[in-house]
Amino acid sequence: MNGHFITLEGGEGAGKTTVLHSIMEKLKAIGLDVIQTREPGGIPIAEQIRNIILDKKNTEMEKRTEALLYAAARRQHLVEKVIPALEQGKIVLCDRFIDSSLAYQGHARGIGMEEVLEINRFAIQHCMPNLTLFFDIEPEKGLARISANINREQNRLDVETLHFHERVYEGYQILAKKFPERIYTINADRPLEQVEQEVLKVVLSYLQIDVS
Amino acid sequence: MNGHFITLEGGEGAGKTTVLHSIMEKLKAIGLDVIQTREPGGIPIAEQIRNIILDKKNTEMEKRTEALLYAAARRQHLVEKVIPALEQGKIVLCDRFIDSSLAYQGHARGIGMEEVLEINRFAIQHCMPNLTLFFDIEPEKGLARISANINREQNRLDVETLHFHERVYEGYQILAKKFPERIYTINADRPLEQVEQEVLKVVLSYLQIDVS
Repeated sequence: MNGHFITLEGGEGAGKTTVLHSIMEKLKAIGLDVIQTREPGGIPIAEQIRNIILDKKNTEMEKRTEALLYAAARRQHLVEKVIPALEQGKIVLCDRFIDSSLAYQGHARGIGMEEVLEINRFAIQHCMPNLTLFFDIEPEKGLARISANINREQNRLDVETLHFHERVYEGYQILAKKFPERIYTINADRPLEQVEQEVLKVVLSYLQIDVS
Repeated sequence: MNGHFITLEGGEGAGKTTVLHSIMEKLKAIGLDVIQTREPGGIPIAEQIRNIILDKKNTEMEKRTEALLYAAARRQHLVEKVIPALEQGKIVLCDRFIDSSLAYQGHARGIGMEEVLEINRFAIQHCMPNLTLFFDIEPEKGLARISANINREQNRLDVETLHFHERVYEGYQILAKKFPERIYTINADRPLEQVEQEVLKVVLSYLQIDVS
């Protein structure tokens, strides 16, 4: 596959989605063939799985069930959308991927990162991201950004405690230390404009493109 | 856990479900505390997952997605229904369990049994069946039984080719050879009454109960 697979990771309210959108436009503007996506990415089967995971009525959901469902949705999205784009040589910018499962289910829920990695290896085989941008911001600050957004519908994850989100953050920090060759840490506790500028710089540098 | 976990396995039309029902009644009649179940076992979350798997509209379902969904439904059914019953010391008779995934997704779909075993280990942890009864009948004969049953609604698995069902059968034969201490092979190509008698004998012998 001659495309480039770039993922954006981080806790709630880290600014990933907003930044992804503007980066996408800037990469397009300089003539690059790029798509943006996020799990479940509009793939009907993955959307159906996501609905089960996020349904607030499913209070009995066990943590390993949840981890397997995320891996299943990931697989379908990867096969139907990400891999075909990479095979066409595109740059794929994806909002959340395997590291979300490692941080949320593996670390924060306490299943263990190694175990969650196993089922995700089954799901993605060898299709790991080439570059991952970790949006680093303390959970309290990220959550404050979200609660200011009244248009956002609440789901099963939003009712988690601050402690849970702190564990997620800790999980990401462990991953960033463990995979320094793949994961680049972005200070996300700054105005979005500055975050965008750094993300763009890192992506262009990874792509070995000089626009100065 | 002081209960006993007994699973029934085999291809389509092998007679598992019918025999399970009558065995259940016979074990109850001699005063044993026994429940019967089958995946997804009436557990709402597992039913929702099953609906995605069997929906005939989901033609894009990739084989690894399917395997992960079965593992997720298995986990939820195990945690909500099977383990609580085993903890209460009950005998649990379960129509299909891990070997179905190994035979159908691992062998017949060609993912590989070892790989499918990995994600199922994640799903069931150490809760393997104590005894598994493999209903051994050639696929052609089993399928002929099913097609005679006009009340049975067709699902995504029923439209598979005979070749697929032959691969499933081959998968079960491999498993029976690999785990002879757990899997007992029942000749299911006989009148159901005879099959029932043998199943009852095997179960009572496993439970070390003498009713002669």
